[in-house]
Amino acid sequence: MPQQYSVLFLPDNVTVQVEAGESIFRAASRAGIELKSTCGNKGTCGRCAIKIKEGKVRTQEGNIGARLRRTGHVLACQTLVAGDVVVEVPKDSRLDEHQVLLAGRADQGELVEKELDLLEGYAFEPVGQKVYVELPPPTLTGNATDLNRLEIELRKKVPAGHFHIGLNNLRRLAEVVRAGDWKVSATLAHMDGLTEIVDLKPGSSSTQAYGLAIDIGTTTVVVYLVDLNTGATVDQRGGYNKQARYGDDVISRIIRATENGGLNELHTAVITTINELVEKLVQRNKIDRADISVVVVAANTTMTHMFLGLPPKYIRLEPYIPTASEFPPVKAGELNLAINPDAWVLCFPAVASYMGGDIVAGVLATRLAESDALTLFIDIGTNGEMVLGNRDWMISCSCSAGPAFEGGGITFGMRAMKGAIERATIDPQTYEVEVQAISGYRPIGICGSGLIDLLAKLRRAGLIDRTGQFTRDTVTPRLRQTDEDTEFVLVWGSETECGKDIVITESDIKNILRSKGAVFAGIQSLLKAVQLDVHDIDRLLIAGGFGNYLNIHDAIQIGLLPDLPVEKYAFVGNTSVKGAKLALLSRPALEAAQELARKMTYLELSAGSSFMDEFVSALFLPHTDLSLFPSVKN
Amino acid sequence: MPQQYSVLFLPDNVTVQVEAGESIFRAASRAGIELKSTCGNKGTCGRCAIKIKEGKVRTQEGNIGARLRRTGHVLACQTLVAGDVVVEVPKDSRLDEHQVLLAGRADQGELVEKELDLLEGYAFEPVGQKVYVELPPPTLTGNATDLNRLEIELRKKVPAGHFHIGLNNLRRLAEVVRAGDWKVSATLAHMDGLTEIVDLKPGSSSTQAYGLAIDIGTTTVVVYLVDLNTGATVDQRGGYNKQARYGDDVISRIIRATENGGLNELHTAVITTINELVEKLVQRNKIDRADISVVVVAANTTMTHMFLGLPPKYIRLEPYIPTASEFPPVKAGELNLAINPDAWVLCFPAVASYMGGDIVAGVLATRLAESDALTLFIDIGTNGEMVLGNRDWMISCSCSAGPAFEGGGITFGMRAMKGAIERATIDPQTYEVEVQAISGYRPIGICGSGLIDLLAKLRRAGLIDRTGQFTRDTVTPRLRQTDEDTEFVLVWGSETECGKDIVITESDIKNILRSKGAVFAGIQSLLKAVQLDVHDIDRLLIAGGFGNYLNIHDAIQIGLLPDLPVEKYAFVGNTSVKGAKLALLSRPALEAAQELARKMTYLELSAGSSFMDEFVSALFLPHTDLSLFPSVKN
Repeated sequence: MPQQYSVLFLPDNVTVQVEAGESIFRAASRAGIELKSTCGNKGTCGRCAIKIKEGKVRTQEGNIGARLRRTGHVLACQTLVAGDVVVEVPKDSRLDEHQVLLAGRADQGELVEKELDLLEGYAFEPVGQKVYVELPPPTLTGNATDLNRLEIELRKKVPAGHFHIGLNNLRRLAEVVRAGDWKVSATLAHMDGLTEIVDLKPGSSSTQAYGLAIDIGTTTVVVYLVDLNTGATVDQRGGYNKQARYGDDVISRIIRATENGGLNELHTAVITTINELVEKLVQRNKIDRADISVVVVAANTTMTHMFLGLPPKYIRLEPYIPTASEFPPVKAGELNLAINPDAWVLCFPAVASYMGGDIVAGVLATRLAESDALTLFIDIGTNGEMVLGNRDWMISCSCSAGPAFEGGGITFGMRAMKGAIERATIDPQTYEVEVQAISGYRPIGICGSGLIDLLAKLRRAGLIDRTGQFTRDTVTPRLRQTDEDTEFVLVWGSETECGKDIVITESDIKNILRSKGAVFAGIQSLLKAVQLDVHDIDRLLIAGGFGNYLNIHDAIQIGLLPDLPVEKYAFVGNTSVKGAKLALLSRPALEAAQELARKMTYLELSAGSSFMDEFVSALFLPHTDLSLFPSVKN
Repeated sequence: MPQQYSVLFLPDNVTVQVEAGESIFRAASRAGIELKSTCGNKGTCGRCAIKIKEGKVRTQEGNIGARLRRTGHVLACQTLVAGDVVVEVPKDSRLDEHQVLLAGRADQGELVEKELDLLEGYAFEPVGQKVYVELPPPTLTGNATDLNRLEIELRKKVPAGHFHIGLNNLRRLAEVVRAGDWKVSATLAHMDGLTEIVDLKPGSSSTQAYGLAIDIGTTTVVVYLVDLNTGATVDQRGGYNKQARYGDDVISRIIRATENGGLNELHTAVITTINELVEKLVQRNKIDRADISVVVVAANTTMTHMFLGLPPKYIRLEPYIPTASEFPPVKAGELNLAINPDAWVLCFPAVASYMGGDIVAGVLATRLAESDALTLFIDIGTNGEMVLGNRDWMISCSCSAGPAFEGGGITFGMRAMKGAIERATIDPQTYEVEVQAISGYRPIGICGSGLIDLLAKLRRAGLIDRTGQFTRDTVTPRLRQTDEDTEFVLVWGSETECGKDIVITESDIKNILRSKGAVFAGIQSLLKAVQLDVHDIDRLLIAGGFGNYLNIHDAIQIGLLPDLPVEKYAFVGNTSVKGAKLALLSRPALEAAQELARKMTYLELSAGSSFMDEFVSALFLPHTDLSLFPSVKN
C-alpha cells in the first residue's frame, strides 16, 4: 500500500488522509472544500491557487499568475502530496457561496420577471399519484392473489388496463398488505400509456406524494420538490454542478468524458450534486424519500447524456450526433438517485446536440408554440440558444457564446455571486468609476451582466472605439499599458476584497465582443432563414441565469440584443425547471413536450457560411450595420 | 478471523478450506460433492451419512440408522469441523448421476410417448428475434440521433410503434453502431405489446438468437436451449434442483424460506441450478450467452415464487394466497441469471397456490382446451395435479400425494436413477422375487414406479390383503418381523449394491396407499364437482417424471388411476418444458397461456368435505368400491 499522509486545510482546519502522489485539489475535494477550476485540472486555468504552509510536495508551475507565484502560491491541481502537509486556501480560489437562479429574477431593473401561470390550459394530471385502497381479506373461496386483489381495488379509483409492478414491490407486496390489515397506499406513476406501482405502504398513514423537477445546467443545478397532490412547490434548492471541476463548458467536459473513466466521473458528479440537494430538501421538509416517485429532468443534450451515463463523445465531433434525443424513462435506482429506487425518471426530449431539453422545457413553459405572436426565446450561457416561432412553426439555433458572460476568459471575470461587479458608472470627463457589487460586498471581480454594462459605459465615455480598442489619446492613470496588454482600472486595490486592482483589458473586451457577436449573429441567422426582419419580432423572452441580472438597455447598446422597444422584452427566469415542473404535474404537457421537440427545426449554424458573415459584422459596437440599432447613439 | 481447516473428501480426493465450526455437509457442497438430504440439514432424514477417517470434529448423533452408526458413520449435517479432517463419502449418501426427465419417456412398456407437434396451429412468432440493419451514416443535414436512425431501419423490418431500449444498451449504442460502420444486429424481445432492444452487436457477424425454455420442478430442473431463428431445440440439460438440500417438498422449503435469510438461500439455489445448466449448454454449443435474449419459465406456484424471490409464506397458510398468479416480466440481470442481463424472463401464469404455471404449460402443450374430447391431464409428483376439461371448460385440483412416489418416506425409496428397482416379479408359490433395476445396475433401492409395480405384485401373489397388510399366515424367510415393523425382503444383501437386504415394510405400503388414495380421490372429486363419471373420460394424459417409468396396468391394479382401457391413456412427457418452449416460439401461444390460466377453475379440496370421504374410500387395493375397477381381479 502506498504511504499515507495527512493534509490539513486552513483556515477550515479540516484534515484528510491521502495517499502519496494525490493532488492537493483532490484532497481538498475530499475535505469538502471545492476549489475553482475550469480546465479539468490541467493546470491551464490558474484558478486553484493555494499556499503550502508546511510539508513536502512535488509541484509543477502550470499557468499561475506572476503575482500569485511571487507570493508563494502554487496550483492545487499541479501539486502532489509527498509528506504531511498544511495548506492555506485563499478565498479567491474557493467555489464560494453563491446565488443560483432558482426560478426567476429578483427585481433588478426596469423589467420585472413575467409570472407564468404554469398549468394554464393543461389538465392537472400529475405523472405520479398516491392511492389508498382497502382490499377484501382473502378466504378459501375468495382466494384471488394479493396482486389481483390490489389491482381490482386500484382499478376502481384509477383507470388503467393493467398495473405494472416491478420485482422490488412485488417482493414486498405480501407483507405490506398484511401489515396494513388489507389497507394499503400505492404510489403510481403514469407513463408511456402504462401505470406502474412504484411504491407500497401499509395502511393509510401516508398520503404524501412528491415529485422532483430538476434543471441540470452546465453551471448550476436546481431542484424543485413538488407536492403531487396539490401541485405546489414545497421547497427548492440550487447548487453548482459538481462537474465544474472537470471544466467550465460542455466541450471540455465532453473531452473529459471521452477519457478513460471520465464519463463515470462526470455522471457521478451530477448525480452527487442532485443527491446533496435532495438530501437538504428531504431533511428540511421532513419527508420520506420513498415518497418521491417521479422525477422530470430538463437539461441540455450533453448534460442529459451525462446524467444518464450516455457517452457524449459524438456530440462534439462533426456531424454532432447524440445517442438519443428522446430518452427512455429510467428507474432512479439505475442512476443511484437517492430517492425511491423504483421512481421513474423522465428526461425532456432534445432537438439536437446543441438544442436540448432545457430549451424545449422553456418553450413549453412559455407557451411560445401556442401563440400567434412571433416570439424570440433566448437563453444565454456559454452557449446562446434561441428559438424563433409561433403556433405554426419554430426554428432554433445554438451559437457558441464562449464563457465570457459567465466570467470565463476575462481577467477578473467571475460568476454572478457576492462581490461581483454588476453595474458601473464612468464619468465622461474625469473617467472616475463607481461600481456596484452584488450584495454590497467589496468588489472581487466582474460578472457577465457587469461586463455588458461596463462595455456600454466605456463606449459612452469614449474610452473605447467601435472596434473595442481603447482610444490611445485618453489620459487617465486608470488607463495603462502592461507588458502584454492595455488595461483600464475599474477599482483600485485599496478598495477591493483581494487587494489587487480590478482591471478590464483590451483582450477582455475582444472576448466580450466575440460573445455578443455570436449571439446577435445567431438571431440574424434565424431571421434570415425564415426571411424575416428584427422588426417582425413581437416579443423577446430572456430566460436563464444570465437574464437574471441583465440590463436590456446595456445589452442593446453593445449590440447583444435587437434594438426593439423594451416593452417587447420579458424576463421569464429559469424556464427549464418551470417546464420540468409543468410536465411533472400534467401528463398532457409531458406529451406536448415530445411534440414540441419534434416540431422544432434546428438550424445547424456550422452547416452554412452565412453565420460567419453575420458574426464578423456583429464584432463592432453595436454593429457594422448601424441601421439595425437606430436607438444607439454613436 | 476464525481458524481455517482443510477438509479432504475421499474417494474424490478433493480438499476445501473451511472455517472452524462449518458443517461437513456445507464443506462437501463447496467441494462440489452433493450429499443427499431431505430434511433441510436438521439431522432427521439420516441420508447424509459419511465417515470421518481422520481429524477432529464435533458431532451430534441425529437420526442415523443403527447399522451406519455401528460402522462408524456420522451425519454430515450434524458434524462440525474442529481441525483438519479426512472424510469418506459413501456412494449411498451421494446425490448421484441421475436421469432427469428432459422431454419424454423412452419406450418402457406398452405405451410410447405421444409425440406433440408443438407449434401446430400456432404461428411461429418467437418472443425474441435478431434483426440486422444498415443505417445511413449521419451528415450535418441528415443528423438524426443514433437511436432515431436505428429505429427507422428496424421499423422497416419489424412492425412496432416504438422500440424500447434500456439504459445498458442505450449507453453502448453510439460505439456499437460506429464499430460496425453503421451496420448493426439488434436482438429484440416482444412482450406486453411492446418491442424492446435487448442487445446490440456491431455488424452482421452474429445472426444467432437463442431463448431458454425452463421447467423448474421441485425435484429437477430442465433447460432447453432453443434457436429462435429455426425453432429447433439446440440442446437440453437437466439436473437436480439445488433447493433439495432444504427439503424434499414445497412445504418444507416454504418453511425454510420463512426463516431469516431462507428465501434468499432458496432463490439463490434455484438460480445456481439454472446457471450451471446454462453454463454447460453455452460451453457445449459454443454460443455467446449475450445471444440468449428471452427465457420462458414454467413451474409450480411455489417454485415460481422462489425463482422470482417472492415470499411463498402465505401459499402454505390458509387460505393459501400467493403474491401473484400472473407474473410481470423481469430482466435476467435482476435475477442474476448468467445470460444477457437485459434478457426478458417470462413466467407462466399460475391458477392458484397449488395449481401452477407448469400445469398451465402442460394444458397449452397438449391442447387440452382445444379439443372436444373430455380429457384428464395428470402430473404426479409430491403433489398430484390434475386438470379435467375440454374446449368449453376446465376444472383442476391438487392433492398432496406425499413423497412416496419420489422415494420419500419409504425405507428403501429412491428416485428413478441407476440402481432403482423399477420392476419385480413374485412367484405366487415360492414367493421368490426377481427385480429389474434401472440401467441394469445392482439394486440400491426402489423408485416410485417400482413401488407401484411391487404393490400390484404383492397383492397378486397374495402376500398382502386389500388393506395393504401382510397376510400373517404366509411362510417364507423373506417375510419377517423386526422390532418395529413387518417387512418383506425383495433382494438379499449379497445381491445389492450396498450389501444390505432391500426390504419393503408394512409402513412403506401404508405410505404408498395414502399417496395413491390421494390421487384417485382427487380424480373422483373433480368428476363429482362436474357431475361426471370415470367412464365419461375420453383420454387421460400422464405427464411428468413419474409417468416416465409408470406402468399403466400396475397403476390401475392398485387403484391409482381409473380403470379405463389402456388405449385411452397417453404419456406426454415433460409438458411443462414443452409448453415453455411453445410460448417462447409463439407469441400467440404465450397469450393463450394467460387465457388458459384465467379460464381454469380451481377446486380447493380442503374447502369441502367430499375429498376426505373419497380419500378414505381409496385407501384400499384397489378401492372400497370394487365396481370402479371391474378389470381388477380380487
